[in-house]
Amino acid sequence: MTNPTNMTSDTTNEPPRRRVAFLGPPGTFSEQAAVLYAPDAELIDYPTISTAAEAPVRGDADCAIVPFENSIAGAVGETHDLIIHHLNLRIRDELVLPIEHCLILPPESSTAAVELIISHPQPLAQCHLYLQRRFPDVRTEATLSTAEAVGRALAYGRGAAAIRPRRAAEIHNAQIVETGIEDDHRNATRFIVLAADDRGPTGNDKTTLVFSTANRPGALLRALEHFAARSINLTRIESRPARERLGAYLFIVDCDGHREDAALAGALLDLQQDLARLRVVGSYPRAEPPAA
Amino acid sequence: MTNPTNMTSDTTNEPPRRRVAFLGPPGTFSEQAAVLYAPDAELIDYPTISTAAEAPVRGDADCAIVPFENSIAGAVGETHDLIIHHLNLRIRDELVLPIEHCLILPPESSTAAVELIISHPQPLAQCHLYLQRRFPDVRTEATLSTAEAVGRALAYGRGAAAIRPRRAAEIHNAQIVETGIEDDHRNATRFIVLAADDRGPTGNDKTTLVFSTANRPGALLRALEHFAARSINLTRIESRPARERLGAYLFIVDCDGHREDAALAGALLDLQQDLARLRVVGSYPRAEPPAA
Repeated sequence: MTNPTNMTSDTTNEPPRRRVAFLGPPGTFSEQAAVLYAPDAELIDYPTISTAAEAPVRGDADCAIVPFENSIAGAVGETHDLIIHHLNLRIRDELVLPIEHCLILPPESSTAAVELIISHPQPLAQCHLYLQRRFPDVRTEATLSTAEAVGRALAYGRGAAAIRPRRAAEIHNAQIVETGIEDDHRNATRFIVLAADDRGPTGNDKTTLVFSTANRPGALLRALEHFAARSINLTRIESRPARERLGAYLFIVDCDGHREDAALAGALLDLQQDLARLRVVGSYPRAEPPAA
Repeated sequence: MTNPTNMTSDTTNEPPRRRVAFLGPPGTFSEQAAVLYAPDAELIDYPTISTAAEAPVRGDADCAIVPFENSIAGAVGETHDLIIHHLNLRIRDELVLPIEHCLILPPESSTAAVELIISHPQPLAQCHLYLQRRFPDVRTEATLSTAEAVGRALAYGRGAAAIRPRRAAEIHNAQIVETGIEDDHRNATRFIVLAADDRGPTGNDKTTLVFSTANRPGALLRALEHFAARSINLTRIESRPARERLGAYLFIVDCDGHREDAALAGALLDLQQDLARLRVVGSYPRAEPPAA
């Protein structure tokens, strides 16, 4: 006869549920990315990108998903500084999410009644033309964090609206009145998944490197030559302050291929001879671009 | 006999007072940079970097001074996007300002009475260790704009303090209790001065370029080779989204020399053949580094 204890014990044969850290609070694009990346995982929100990224290092999560770059706003500095300075973190996946803003109303309100629209300054700016066209005479109010906007709109009641990701409406049980209200529909954010280890080769991979060069003519050039000599495409090169003095930089480079591929492995060996500092942050499968 | 009208007329023989646009409100580091750059000018504050930069284009100011990069936070995206997309703007000067935060109190208060410290989230973060050491039990409050902090502290009265640049205390007639309270004293911001024209050669110049390359292996490399072939040092290379799609970038490069110098002029001619797009944003005298 099976007793409840045995039943519980049986379930431990299932793999433990994966825990994914993300930049909270719930309802942000980061949570939307986490749901997309690991639909069955336990999602744990953290107040900053840095605390989310430290969760897998401390063993509080299996991985952390954080924003890396946006097609309009550019690089997310805090995430770049993390992969530069946090030597225990590797990139094991990337994910591209279209950034879609929604107009959200309290449950029993209507667009005709809207007299106040609440959001963080950034979504307000990204939906500026839409607001001018649809709500030319409506007052806008900026909140310090994106999380406050829906709560404040619900508290204000009939007459208020918020601009938030779709995910925020699902959580707050508010109405989504209109979706895709951003002025530029090419807005997409690339997220990276940080963990203790990166991934094995899949045949369609990318690799992210951090390096610094000597400050003399042609130093960056010599580094790039090692990629070009092997026809390795650099998909991105970003500079960040080295934090020593103004004018000292580190480079973050994304390139095609896996660090175990012959061509890239050869380039890395040559780079190590030339550079003051070189670190492979991770090799990971290339993300599909978002559906149009 | 001299009448008042003649006296007024006499004064018009003086050159008209220069007008300098800056990112307001008064009391910010941008105003401090404007005062340093043009002590006798009329300073006009604008609510955003973009509106300040448009002032010289509209004829409302002779030039605009805007933040370009910070030694800790990195590139100021809005300013980079401006020089990429605003073809009427040239860089005619650069200026480096050490970023020094001050603890500011209402006139008749004292540090012993402080129970609340008010500032924007960024200065609060940059002075975190100082606050932990000096005011371990004091509550902090974040404001949406840096400008609000001193006003709120003055309104709160005895018991409140604000973290702001020195300039803010001078304007509000508040007490500066402690200066240089930032955790990292290597914090400096580079400002650029935007105007209709750049500057003639001085013998110690820098030049800023914007360009895009084809998205194929070695395209950036070939561009950099034109600098290296002439021993022209690149002091900075920054990428920004091209705003077409995720993964398309423009490069902003600072290099040594003036666009009229033989070496750089030759490199620019060669670059024009190779690149999809090339624009010289300006040549300008190199700024002295800030005093230690």
